[in-house]
Amino acid sequence: MSVLQRLRDAIATPDPGAAIAARRHLDSLTKPPGSLGRLEDLAARLATIRGAAPRVDAPVVFVFAGDHGVVAEGVSAYPQTVTSQMLENFLAGGAAINVLARQAGARVVVADFGVAIPPRATVRMDVGGLGGRPEPPNSRQIHEGLGGRPEPPNFKQIRLAPGTFNMALGPAMSSAQAIAAIEAGAALADEAVAGGADLFAIGEMGIGNTTAAAAITAAITGVAPERVTGRGTGVDDATWGHKVDVVRRALAINHPDPRNGLAVLAAVGGFEIAGLVGVVLAGAAHRVPVAVDGFIATSAALIAVTLAPESRHALFAAHRSAEPGHTVALEHLALEPYLDLGLRLGEGTGAALFIHLARAAARIYGEMATFKSAGVDGPIDGGVA
Amino acid sequence: MSVLQRLRDAIATPDPGAAIAARRHLDSLTKPPGSLGRLEDLAARLATIRGAAPRVDAPVVFVFAGDHGVVAEGVSAYPQTVTSQMLENFLAGGAAINVLARQAGARVVVADFGVAIPPRATVRMDVGGLGGRPEPPNSRQIHEGLGGRPEPPNFKQIRLAPGTFNMALGPAMSSAQAIAAIEAGAALADEAVAGGADLFAIGEMGIGNTTAAAAITAAITGVAPERVTGRGTGVDDATWGHKVDVVRRALAINHPDPRNGLAVLAAVGGFEIAGLVGVVLAGAAHRVPVAVDGFIATSAALIAVTLAPESRHALFAAHRSAEPGHTVALEHLALEPYLDLGLRLGEGTGAALFIHLARAAARIYGEMATFKSAGVDGPIDGGVA
Repeated sequence: MSVLQRLRDAIATPDPGAAIAARRHLDSLTKPPGSLGRLEDLAARLATIRGAAPRVDAPVVFVFAGDHGVVAEGVSAYPQTVTSQMLENFLAGGAAINVLARQAGARVVVADFGVAIPPRATVRMDVGGLGGRPEPPNSRQIHEGLGGRPEPPNFKQIRLAPGTFNMALGPAMSSAQAIAAIEAGAALADEAVAGGADLFAIGEMGIGNTTAAAAITAAITGVAPERVTGRGTGVDDATWGHKVDVVRRALAINHPDPRNGLAVLAAVGGFEIAGLVGVVLAGAAHRVPVAVDGFIATSAALIAVTLAPESRHALFAAHRSAEPGHTVALEHLALEPYLDLGLRLGEGTGAALFIHLARAAARIYGEMATFKSAGVDGPIDGGVA
Repeated sequence: MSVLQRLRDAIATPDPGAAIAARRHLDSLTKPPGSLGRLEDLAARLATIRGAAPRVDAPVVFVFAGDHGVVAEGVSAYPQTVTSQMLENFLAGGAAINVLARQAGARVVVADFGVAIPPRATVRMDVGGLGGRPEPPNSRQIHEGLGGRPEPPNFKQIRLAPGTFNMALGPAMSSAQAIAAIEAGAALADEAVAGGADLFAIGEMGIGNTTAAAAITAAITGVAPERVTGRGTGVDDATWGHKVDVVRRALAINHPDPRNGLAVLAAVGGFEIAGLVGVVLAGAAHRVPVAVDGFIATSAALIAVTLAPESRHALFAAHRSAEPGHTVALEHLALEPYLDLGLRLGEGTGAALFIHLARAAARIYGEMATFKSAGVDGPIDGGVA
């Protein structure tokens, strides 16, 4: 049996009794029932997926990078060189995700799933296989994490190819590449779980990948390309119209079966997106909650749920991105985001911010006094407050 | 010159040049301009009020408690005993605000501005004047803050009276009491600034205080009582209708001048609300940002802005409460909340969650690499991305 098939088989429906028990515990705490709103829903969902009291002590942010052949069509405001330059920035600790992960006390796992130009930093680094843990090139830039420990990003080289094929001309990758990338992502997730990770956050970097996310979303949801294609890092009106046309051509030439997640991924996906599919599936299999960042990360979640519908229970939509296709994808997944800050950066930045909310929910669940323990009166006449 | 007048005189309009400089700095960081959405607006606003790079290293949450004579009208689902029981819960570290403040690395200043039954804990505690710093009754329940330091709540007794007068029958308090409570709140804020506080969060506890907040909001905004009166901790339909009627009667009997913040406060306010007005005014005077929690804290902000319109620049609406009157008050203040999680607990819980966002904004501002320092290319053809 393949690794992918084992992953899919390991994903089960959570016990509905766990949700009821979590609600009962939350209602015993010194606050009117439900008065912490979605924080209580979040605590209950975290408890349900874990099958135990929620815990957010060791979150891990996966930031996967990959390049996209479709940039040849002129769909991005930035040159392709930026993907590997930003990869170096992640390794130096200077990108937004480094700052936000440090603040959230989260470990960062950066992986090159196939950028066009291997980052210069890797030449200077002693990078092993999946288990390698190099020192970052510039440790002065690494600030202290939550517990005062410096947290250098963990760097992994997967590199399926120096970028995908141009999906406007044919499949972005082969089925074998798609499966290999999913399995590599899942292996990184397994490794994190073995290291004690209790929450995953997924993010990405790849010039051109909002085009891939738009094509995945259109393919799986059936919504028209113009409704799921946005401005990415900031294209103008003319380029936006062209980008919609490119998505339409990619779907026409590849016509993937929307019920076949692997087919959609190979046709119009990206290597970094495939890697994140693996993290989602492994998270769901291990019952570790997965905080999904923006549009591109959510397109990976769409693929994962197409492959294993029960993986949906592990997913937490961190925020609503400024990209219009994101809302379409979230509706398809029936996920309501927790933050709405107009973010459109990616990298896992929204998911890193969400870690604070998830930790707040877990600590509320675990640390608050109960009405009984604190000697606080309930509602008048025992009415529902 | 009175303390209150000195406070009002000290509140100035921030330098518009600071906002422009902050935006320029944010645009130099390794991300497409504006791609961190409202986090960037937040960073720019924090920089503007401070007149320097934003910093959220030492936040302080003020949780003020007071009782309300209007509970005699039967407007709350909970008995009045709960106010002082919750005050004890704050001191023991078991309430939601204790948990969330610990998580946010924030110091908690709890003050009794006039609860009906003095909490039993105070009998056991050696409470001094405004400068007193008692040990909490149960330090085992105090968990570690962000930096590993235990953070016992700082408890202050102000106690203007054992609760306000029933505003449905006459003014809730005298003008002298309103001024004394504002000045006491401002003194606590001054003390926190002297101790290095760089962000204030304001919250409260007081059975019946959503009725006071509704009356304040109706009085100042001119919006009808039925549109600003909500279900508080959870009253039923019949009690809600009665609560609207009580607000209407309180406004009819007191008819405060909406342009006179002190008059509105004395007529239909609360002691804890008056204390928070003092924190807002002192924060604005010291150029310390003030994170405003939910409906009741925002009613204090309405009073403060009526007294000193320029204090608005220091205000940050942490979240949108489930209380309908909150949105009316926020619109009057032209503030857009950052979180929308359906919270309706009070205590400063939403403001404590917001601290993570404010800190994220400050750290993004201070720690990210620039395009130049990281050697990352800008947009193709120098276009606006």
